[in-house]
Amino acid sequence: MPKISVKAAEMPASPIRKLVPFAEAAKKKGKIVYHLNIGQPDIETPEVALEAIRNNNLKTLEYTHSEGIESYRISLGEYYRKFDIPVETEDIIITTGGSEALIFGLMTTCNPGDEIIIPEPFYANYNGFAKIAGVNIVPVTSYIETGFALPPIEEFEKKITSKTKAIIICNPGNPTGYLYTKEELEKLSDIVKKHDLFLFSDEVYREFCYDGAVPFSAMNLPEIKNNVIMIDSVSKRYSMCGARIGAMISKNKDVMQGAMKFAQARLSSPTIDQIAAEAALKTPQSYFDKVEKEYVARRDILVDGLNKIPGVFCPKPSGAFYCVAKLPVKNAEKFCQWLLEDFDFEGQTVMMAPAAGFYATPNTGLQEVRLAYVLKQESLLKAVKCLEEALKVYPERI
Amino acid sequence: MPKISVKAAEMPASPIRKLVPFAEAAKKKGKIVYHLNIGQPDIETPEVALEAIRNNNLKTLEYTHSEGIESYRISLGEYYRKFDIPVETEDIIITTGGSEALIFGLMTTCNPGDEIIIPEPFYANYNGFAKIAGVNIVPVTSYIETGFALPPIEEFEKKITSKTKAIIICNPGNPTGYLYTKEELEKLSDIVKKHDLFLFSDEVYREFCYDGAVPFSAMNLPEIKNNVIMIDSVSKRYSMCGARIGAMISKNKDVMQGAMKFAQARLSSPTIDQIAAEAALKTPQSYFDKVEKEYVARRDILVDGLNKIPGVFCPKPSGAFYCVAKLPVKNAEKFCQWLLEDFDFEGQTVMMAPAAGFYATPNTGLQEVRLAYVLKQESLLKAVKCLEEALKVYPERI
Repeated sequence: MPKISVKAAEMPASPIRKLVPFAEAAKKKGKIVYHLNIGQPDIETPEVALEAIRNNNLKTLEYTHSEGIESYRISLGEYYRKFDIPVETEDIIITTGGSEALIFGLMTTCNPGDEIIIPEPFYANYNGFAKIAGVNIVPVTSYIETGFALPPIEEFEKKITSKTKAIIICNPGNPTGYLYTKEELEKLSDIVKKHDLFLFSDEVYREFCYDGAVPFSAMNLPEIKNNVIMIDSVSKRYSMCGARIGAMISKNKDVMQGAMKFAQARLSSPTIDQIAAEAALKTPQSYFDKVEKEYVARRDILVDGLNKIPGVFCPKPSGAFYCVAKLPVKNAEKFCQWLLEDFDFEGQTVMMAPAAGFYATPNTGLQEVRLAYVLKQESLLKAVKCLEEALKVYPERI
Repeated sequence: MPKISVKAAEMPASPIRKLVPFAEAAKKKGKIVYHLNIGQPDIETPEVALEAIRNNNLKTLEYTHSEGIESYRISLGEYYRKFDIPVETEDIIITTGGSEALIFGLMTTCNPGDEIIIPEPFYANYNGFAKIAGVNIVPVTSYIETGFALPPIEEFEKKITSKTKAIIICNPGNPTGYLYTKEELEKLSDIVKKHDLFLFSDEVYREFCYDGAVPFSAMNLPEIKNNVIMIDSVSKRYSMCGARIGAMISKNKDVMQGAMKFAQARLSSPTIDQIAAEAALKTPQSYFDKVEKEYVARRDILVDGLNKIPGVFCPKPSGAFYCVAKLPVKNAEKFCQWLLEDFDFEGQTVMMAPAAGFYATPNTGLQEVRLAYVLKQESLLKAVKCLEEALKVYPERI
């Protein structure tokens, strides 16, 4: 039997999936499991997008252009410009999810063996995308004590070698929920310019900024406009993860020409989903206001609730719908497994993602967990209560 | 400005796209252009699939499982077994088009620098998929004189090195329309077994077999059941190219586990499109009968018409909806460009794909073109007439 490739063997499994069998076993035993481990929001997709799917009158489901449906690309450019993000139609390739945008971006810019610097903790699937492109991730650690602010720029400097090709940021961040300030982005601009790197800015959570915080796009760093590749997606913005529609955006013509060849090889992104994504651009502001209000309420229940539990620390994020909390346990993965296997409070328990899987540096973030506040408020209240009770009785509490 | 990657620079552009600017210019001049160059059928998608899209009542467009919607995978397995193709649910990963299935398959099985043998002419995007996986294509030439039958197996033997990892076939073939016999597949089975290779069998045109020809699936080669990776797609079968739903199928557990990690990194294939693909499995036989009748009529008009033109030779394909014809010209690409730029017959002309782009061996197939019979019969009649008139006046006719 022929052997599989080194790449396939080394391809990392998602840290979110590791505990799935334990959760399934818990459910089989009749436990209610609050899933704080995944980023699938329960928010409804805007009606205008769903309607576009239901009311389509296509007779033949044809390919679209490889770069995406033109009217969608035009409308998407207008959308960005409404927020003063300078994006023209020709700067946009519609991709099959933000995932594909990042894969295209890495393959277009990096040679196998190149290095990309990423502040950790970071979205774990970046590991997979890097492996696909054959590039090595070099982490720069950010810390829970500062709310996961951008690490000092000297820490980036220290990691730059002749092989460094790019920096990737996620802003607002998954898993941290941290929103980078304009000043932080300008510091990144300086170092990117100095070393002539690419800057990947994953901005898929842009619409999830709270308490009046305004996101600052990397596309608004004119000094490095040819270095920036923005990654976007409709998955979270319109709660339509299953549409698999994203975008790769750059002013750099060479990058866009290179990426187009990858786009052409896979022919096109799904047609109906692009139609839905285009329609979603007409989502009324009231939808976003309602969603924001809901997420702020959820965040406050979760984060305030966590911080009230003795020994727990959770910085309040100003973006996205995740937070990272430090628990009074030595090994959060073991604790998460124990929660599913050996604990329940009135028949209920909690599933969280151990944060170590979001760090590239070994043995980092061992006490931390990532929580997604994508559940209804009453479920979050119950989940926090579960955690509180669990930490009272966990045998290995420190 | 940082440089793009070697991979992006070397990524091949599609041979079908090369002539697009000339076609656009021709249309601007008011010429009617018959597009025989592309594989986008004009056939309508089955109503049952379109209905599933229109009648869906999802409130939130969520991710599906990374391996695909379970009920779809179960039904798809049943579909294959109806044709005595032994596929179980666990042998199936739903992919975003056949393209993604092949990319996953190559990344899962091949290391960068490995070689894959492909009978040429072959589907040109295989070049892009190979480049993405970092593998080198080693062609074995098949010839128009034999209708593009499988080259003698000794020709494959000659090309096998320590780096050879797989053979890829497309059956029925794009661009040749050739349907491999059971005997040809058994020969492939022997060599695959002898050298312990993988066999990729791209069977996306399985339902397009004519004149009573019955396709023989590589999944029915029990001697190499752990070596076979079948590539499938709903694009052509149900004329739903824009759904971007395919499948990677194998009995090899290591391969499937490896591929699953790539599938998990990109989260899932589009949800609505999987629902449509599942519904499409209920397409009535009358749909296929009608489609087959139409394609046979089109093929006969095109191929018989071509063969009546002095100096033109076109073997009659028994599958898919392409054919390759040899023209009495030295350089078919030049002729195709001339057709668009300098020729018209009563205001009409023809766009074809020069076949050289489907060969990996340089300077091969220079006299050949690929034609797709995806147009209505009256258009095909006119297209053939155009070609006939063109060859009467083409200055470089040989």
